[in-house]
Amino acid sequence: MLVRLRKNVPEPERAAVLALAGELGYAVRALEPRRELLELSGRGAPDHRSRFEDLAGIEAILDAGEARERFQRAPLAPDTLVQVGSGRFGAGHVTVIAGPCAVEDEARLLEIARGVRAHGATVLRGGAYKPRTSPYSFQGSRERGLEMLARVKLETGLAVVTEVLDTRDVEAVAEVADLIQIGSRNMANSALLSEVGRLRKPVLLKRGFSATLREFCLAAEYVLAGGNPHVVLCERGIRGFDPSTRNVLDVGAVAALKRMTHLPVIVDPSHAAGRADLVRALARAGLAAGADGIMVDVHTAPSEAHCDGHQAISLEEFAHVTADARALASLDGKRLSTLVESARIESTCVELAR
Amino acid sequence: MLVRLRKNVPEPERAAVLALAGELGYAVRALEPRRELLELSGRGAPDHRSRFEDLAGIEAILDAGEARERFQRAPLAPDTLVQVGSGRFGAGHVTVIAGPCAVEDEARLLEIARGVRAHGATVLRGGAYKPRTSPYSFQGSRERGLEMLARVKLETGLAVVTEVLDTRDVEAVAEVADLIQIGSRNMANSALLSEVGRLRKPVLLKRGFSATLREFCLAAEYVLAGGNPHVVLCERGIRGFDPSTRNVLDVGAVAALKRMTHLPVIVDPSHAAGRADLVRALARAGLAAGADGIMVDVHTAPSEAHCDGHQAISLEEFAHVTADARALASLDGKRLSTLVESARIESTCVELAR
Amino acid sequence: MLVRLRKNVPEPERAAVLALAGELGYAVRALEPRRELLELSGRGAPDHRSRFEDLAGIEAILDAGEARERFQRAPLAPDTLVQVGSGRFGAGHVTVIAGPCAVEDEARLLEIARGVRAHGATVLRGGAYKPRTSPYSFQGSRERGLEMLARVKLETGLAVVTEVLDTRDVEAVAEVADLIQIGSRNMANSALLSEVGRLRKPVLLKRGFSATLREFCLAAEYVLAGGNPHVVLCERGIRGFDPSTRNVLDVGAVAALKRMTHLPVIVDPSHAAGRADLVRALARAGLAAGADGIMVDVHTAPSEAHCDGHQAISLEEFAHVTADARALASLDGKRLSTLVESARIESTCVELAR
Amino acid sequence: MLVRLRKNVPEPERAAVLALAGELGYAVRALEPRRELLELSGRGAPDHRSRFEDLAGIEAILDAGEARERFQRAPLAPDTLVQVGSGRFGAGHVTVIAGPCAVEDEARLLEIARGVRAHGATVLRGGAYKPRTSPYSFQGSRERGLEMLARVKLETGLAVVTEVLDTRDVEAVAEVADLIQIGSRNMANSALLSEVGRLRKPVLLKRGFSATLREFCLAAEYVLAGGNPHVVLCERGIRGFDPSTRNVLDVGAVAALKRMTHLPVIVDPSHAAGRADLVRALARAGLAAGADGIMVDVHTAPSEAHCDGHQAISLEEFAHVTADARALASLDGKRLSTLVESARIESTCVELAR
Repeated sequence: MLVRLRKNVPEPERAAVLALAGELGYAVRALEPRRELLELSGRGAPDHRSRFEDLAGIEAILDAGEARERFQRAPLAPDTLVQVGSGRFGAGHVTVIAGPCAVEDEARLLEIARGVRAHGATVLRGGAYKPRTSPYSFQGSRERGLEMLARVKLETGLAVVTEVLDTRDVEAVAEVADLIQIGSRNMANSALLSEVGRLRKPVLLKRGFSATLREFCLAAEYVLAGGNPHVVLCERGIRGFDPSTRNVLDVGAVAALKRMTHLPVIVDPSHAAGRADLVRALARAGLAAGADGIMVDVHTAPSEAHCDGHQAISLEEFAHVTADARALASLDGKRLSTLVESARIESTCVELAR
Repeated sequence: MLVRLRKNVPEPERAAVLALAGELGYAVRALEPRRELLELSGRGAPDHRSRFEDLAGIEAILDAGEARERFQRAPLAPDTLVQVGSGRFGAGHVTVIAGPCAVEDEARLLEIARGVRAHGATVLRGGAYKPRTSPYSFQGSRERGLEMLARVKLETGLAVVTEVLDTRDVEAVAEVADLIQIGSRNMANSALLSEVGRLRKPVLLKRGFSATLREFCLAAEYVLAGGNPHVVLCERGIRGFDPSTRNVLDVGAVAALKRMTHLPVIVDPSHAAGRADLVRALARAGLAAGADGIMVDVHTAPSEAHCDGHQAISLEEFAHVTADARALASLDGKRLSTLVESARIESTCVELAR
Repeated sequence: MLVRLRKNVPEPERAAVLALAGELGYAVRALEPRRELLELSGRGAPDHRSRFEDLAGIEAILDAGEARERFQRAPLAPDTLVQVGSGRFGAGHVTVIAGPCAVEDEARLLEIARGVRAHGATVLRGGAYKPRTSPYSFQGSRERGLEMLARVKLETGLAVVTEVLDTRDVEAVAEVADLIQIGSRNMANSALLSEVGRLRKPVLLKRGFSATLREFCLAAEYVLAGGNPHVVLCERGIRGFDPSTRNVLDVGAVAALKRMTHLPVIVDPSHAAGRADLVRALARAGLAAGADGIMVDVHTAPSEAHCDGHQAISLEEFAHVTADARALASLDGKRLSTLVESARIESTCVELAR
Repeated sequence: MLVRLRKNVPEPERAAVLALAGELGYAVRALEPRRELLELSGRGAPDHRSRFEDLAGIEAILDAGEARERFQRAPLAPDTLVQVGSGRFGAGHVTVIAGPCAVEDEARLLEIARGVRAHGATVLRGGAYKPRTSPYSFQGSRERGLEMLARVKLETGLAVVTEVLDTRDVEAVAEVADLIQIGSRNMANSALLSEVGRLRKPVLLKRGFSATLREFCLAAEYVLAGGNPHVVLCERGIRGFDPSTRNVLDVGAVAALKRMTHLPVIVDPSHAAGRADLVRALARAGLAAGADGIMVDVHTAPSEAHCDGHQAISLEEFAHVTADARALASLDGKRLSTLVESARIESTCVELAR
């Protein structure tokens, strides 16, 4: 590890650094006369970097060396493959998730589920608990929504992803969901992250809309550190300054994340664009940048949607999106997941491939 | 209310708007031949705007008219005054909150508390539950931290503000805290906001680091709508692009918020700057922009702090900060809260002044 | 046109709006009792919207109606095709621009030019005048660089794009360049935009790194209004907050621009990424989002580059980039421009297709 | 100097670094076995850092040591004082600049000039050449505007600041202006910066709305390196994401700049806010953060302003602003500049105090 102390660091702060280094088994060598640049030799562990960064005397960790966090890509180690029903994410597999923003009416949900299944989706999205900006907006059908999702899942064979908002609801959501979503607004909700880290179910973690990639990966680390290796990252647009689109889909983040981490990365073009007419272009861009899947808002009657109706695409448009996904996957020698009729619907977690 | 429908809105979407208008008792008049601009006349209520915005047919609410949310400043209505121990926020009162970022050692905490009390703080800050980017960073002393805060509060007569991270901890935190903090990372955590909305204790709500002012105020609305009128807003810096400061203290937001809402607004210069040498300047700037208080990280031995040691100021520097606060308050004819020995320490909530 | 006046607009401000409406031949009708919402009927012209926006009484132009600026896509009107040597941009044509960031050594430039030509580039990029953050950084080979570009152009048959920084250099640059670049830092340099608007040579306009799409298009309007219809827009990354990439390639902007304007839009993945290993992924993402071309930094010996060596890709990597471009273009039924030996090298401007 | 090479830097790139070090007279020592961390000992000069940064092998300059740019504050060196007519900026002096956004009508200009003079302004602002987003917006009265400014300056004794947009106009503007403004949109226009660097007249350089502080200071360095030491920096708001204010006044930048550079720093609250009702609060905040002056849009009849009428404040409000400035200056032991009748109006440049 290569560590830089603060300029003119007071002696007690330097001592605290040396003490921690000793405790963690590192040999320390000062690299220049002012002794502000330290080389630490020893065996790294996932928690070391953060523990040094906690110290007031540390200016920066210039090189973490072997102290690699769990999310980090190690040389030669394979990608993690996360399996959710028939859907596979990562390690050469691409999956399409689709469905309504919110679960409202069961007949409608079933209609949409059958529609997206017909066009190539293997995972159904649908919010039962909805995080909303205003307390007066529709907050989701909650328990009733989970029940609808459970029945539609049985009926269609699609796996299900749905969001959890409260530590107290994790168990109930995990009973129905094959993939548990932590939304953007809760990306830094460490209590919730720790709670889903106790599960052995795949977790879909959406990037906070102003989170750096390191902050995003460290949020995933809360889940991984809890013992749950099945995390799918989702880029969904960062906050920008232009009113033309709701958010800015950060395709550079997709490409950079694929180099930083072995975890699968998908994109959500619907929330990024905030307008239906751009969804197809953004889905293509995300996949072309290397995403392992997409998550798309689809609705058969946007006018009746209680939330985010503007951004839902029709089944016709969705057919174009999945055709694009198939073409782009094949261009890259990747496989687009298809529904396996006999697949046990519960998520069968593949061992973490490290 | 003046409402604009989406261009070429389909008939069912228009019908849904008219149906909601009818349900809420509004008379509707189309203002131009295309009937995309509607004037709704009737009595507004806090939830109306959000309910219209939920409809897919709505392009924008151009003028909400009488449909005013609870956070909004009504013409001629007085400011809300929130009282926390001896500290008063808003309606001409300015309060200084100070203390360590995290509660670690009781003797140290007491030393700091006495120090900041001597220089004019009336509320002690100190994190027992710490939200951290990395799962390996110090997560706070938790229950033990709450106990230390309780004892130091008794000992010093200072009121206490501390953060809650999990809905399941709200009760325990509320037993000790006179002012319950919801941090930036949880500003949009609706489950947590609703939970503190059930209390009758003052809540300090920090702005998410990329939240718009309307999003910020609607987060406060979750608390207000739950029946808890005692909310203090805190601007603590927004995410910027320049590495010189950790965040950008948005003093324009302070000034704009004072016009949008009757709630008190304070600033946190320590988290905005992320470096001790700028704290005093930012505290001054926030107060000069109209803030009703400041919250400052102070530590007597920054080198021993387990988090954010770089940004804590010394007692000497803090003396300058409070002197500035006193001078600026007097320039504006405001009163800086001082410790009233006989004050009952529990927060005595003043009735919401509306 | 649908115009909204400021709330409680003073009478002289209202009168100024009505006077301008009269002067421009609009009939005015107030849509509601407060007379703050005005419908203007009449024939629009490109300058009308801006002229109304100049008035202090105007809150917003809700709908510009027929007052369409020159950059705007009109219903049913075809895309503009800009031709630069053998390269065609827009209207179903995709072109690859490649070359070194800066022109330094003629032998090296020729080597790179031949290399990129072999792999499918039809336009050579190379900066003679370099805009640099520091006055002490290499400012380009200037006139000598232009001469090298002129000779390499003759030698290779590639068309040439190079940047102009000063109104006084426009003529000299236009003598050599087939496509004149206005860089990001000068996107809002109205003097320079007006100057190239006087030419009849194609202009490559790069988006300022914090410009909204409307600001970007209005910068192009300076050129169009001057009588030069040959403008290619280039998205090159917006300023973000994450240090992983230098800028954020805004692929949503590409998709949104293609809907706003008839002008061709390309992307510059090299300046967006700021690191060579992400260039290919970003080039793919841009094209998948609908871009009409890409501009890529290529160097045969990055270690000798005097600027932006980190982001230049090798010829081997460039071969992958053009193969991707060919595959993506064919997926969309677009044509990738190829070098026509007999092509007159000077840019032969196609009539503006409107 | 402490320099970090790129990881696994190729040999020619390392050699290029060593060659430059030799050329500039530095002795080089590798600090660790991989030889990626180099200590360079020798005499620094303003251009050294940028020249190293130009090399592809350099990852970062960790510590520039003695290689200090001209804008940088040197230990123990005094602040630069820039004098413009009766106005003094920096080194304990605060100056108020005020006037209309654009110069339109001479009688009106004179009225405003007399008004702001009566309330304590010593420098008159007024745009003759206006940088506008749209080519159809009012572009300023140009030469005629300069003539009006010249006459009003004679009449009132106020010094004048006005903007230059084109290298070809620098001479004409410098004949009238006592302080030559480079606007935000041209902050990175190196041709224009170099041109005003040839003058010996004070330059007011506004921060680009997404420029980092280092980019801002390096733009000033273009002027300083040209031999003109009289630069005043102006923070005028950075681009944000919230529509409540047009820009975000970055008071942390003011405080940080005062530590980075010896140059005076002022704020422009009018362009930051974009709305008149927040100007006073932002002016106060900027001064409280340590600014050496303010520049405010004032108009006696905002309804007749051809640009930015929304943000201009009245003379009554301006009286409050200058009263605040006086109070805040006196709180800090600074002096607010007042009009000296006998002052020669041409800017009498004080020798650069270094």
